[in-house]
Amino acid sequence: MTRPAPQPHAYYESNRLLAEYAEFHFGDTWYGVENFPKALAERALAAMAGKPRGKALDLGCACGRASFELAKQFDEVEGIDFSANFVHLASEMARQGSVRYPLTEEGELTSERTRSLKDMGLDACASKVSFYQGDACNLEGRFTDYDLVLAANLIDRLYKPRLFLNNIHQRINDAGILLIASPYTWMEEHTPKDEWIGGFQKDGEDYTTLDGLKEILSPNFRLIQAPEKVPFVIRETQHKFQHTLSEVTLWERLPR
Amino acid sequence: MTRPAPQPHAYYESNRLLAEYAEFHFGDTWYGVENFPKALAERALAAMAGKPRGKALDLGCACGRASFELAKQFDEVEGIDFSANFVHLASEMARQGSVRYPLTEEGELTSERTRSLKDMGLDACASKVSFYQGDACNLEGRFTDYDLVLAANLIDRLYKPRLFLNNIHQRINDAGILLIASPYTWMEEHTPKDEWIGGFQKDGEDYTTLDGLKEILSPNFRLIQAPEKVPFVIRETQHKFQHTLSEVTLWERLPR
Repeated sequence: MTRPAPQPHAYYESNRLLAEYAEFHFGDTWYGVENFPKALAERALAAMAGKPRGKALDLGCACGRASFELAKQFDEVEGIDFSANFVHLASEMARQGSVRYPLTEEGELTSERTRSLKDMGLDACASKVSFYQGDACNLEGRFTDYDLVLAANLIDRLYKPRLFLNNIHQRINDAGILLIASPYTWMEEHTPKDEWIGGFQKDGEDYTTLDGLKEILSPNFRLIQAPEKVPFVIRETQHKFQHTLSEVTLWERLPR
Repeated sequence: MTRPAPQPHAYYESNRLLAEYAEFHFGDTWYGVENFPKALAERALAAMAGKPRGKALDLGCACGRASFELAKQFDEVEGIDFSANFVHLASEMARQGSVRYPLTEEGELTSERTRSLKDMGLDACASKVSFYQGDACNLEGRFTDYDLVLAANLIDRLYKPRLFLNNIHQRINDAGILLIASPYTWMEEHTPKDEWIGGFQKDGEDYTTLDGLKEILSPNFRLIQAPEKVPFVIRETQHKFQHTLSEVTLWERLPR
């Protein structure tokens, strides 16, 4: 996997992005759209009703909000992200119970925000979560035996999403749940076009990402409810927001 | 002014962007947010009540929707954009009364849209508008004698916004109106940091873009009403949207 050379403003940009995601996970809501990692965790927990809730994996955890939310009911939650910066912030939240970051208002003007687990009713969850830097397409063997794997806004940022989807069942217990959420925003800078799992024509017909998911996952999973589009909003400045719909699908691991 | 070298996917990207803006100007609305160029034209026309409505300039006109809307009351409207692609589409709409473009749904899947002036109640306006490629920082001398200049989502994309703002009064008739709308999204790829007119600290205090506008424009204009944040939504795919607030300020040209 080749990576672009660091850009002149890469450090500033990466810090700005970190603050955006910290606010996305722990901050205010806009346009009446509820907190997205929390909303996903709630959907996952609803699907786990009556099932064992031993260990969960939050893959592409970013700043970790869903991990904390899942720990309300799971014994143990592991969060993994490709970005060491994100993992560092998530770990800091778990260790200290709060984080502080500079939110962009306009241009280079910022305002400081402090967010705490206590204010989110999550302080009892900190001891059950742990965060690791890792690559969803090349996970270490120790990350296995999960009752739930949550993959939120992940698959369209992987360099080999098919590889990930072909193998993830090996890490999920029988009757365990895989939750995938994605806006299916395929971009060649993240995923080479020949690795896209949908969003193109095949045999002269539209072949969507949902078609691809069904084809790839069906040997090992069954889709347990109708796909649902869940909105999220990421604040970039006081005036500029990304307003996106992420399609949530819930898959139950077939018995081995 | 130096420009980056063309990128491998520049042609595809520029066509995708053109379709995004065609839909932004002539297409559907989302999240209950009204058509933005139309909303701005209506605010401008309201401010022109009782004033001469001879000639208007729509600077940074993109696909031209505001130009057509202004032509409901103005004798003549000129639209100028830096992008020849945008000007071409706007001109095509004026000449043919309709345009057709491929809207991105997911990945490279698209669906065709056709939009007509008639469906927007604007067919009588086509003969009053004309579109030109041009640079707001270096306008030809013939673009002058306007009763209204509309500058929508323009100033934070200029390489020398101060130069533009320092000179625009020369092209506006006495008691004419300048409408500026901007989310103040300053980015160094468009505007070198030393050309930003606000969004930084000055003498240890926050200095906003609105502060900068007031300082630069006050010798030749008076602010005639309180700034107003007007939302707009740009659809990128069926799932991904930019949801932005553009601050609208209305300025009346002081007598010479």
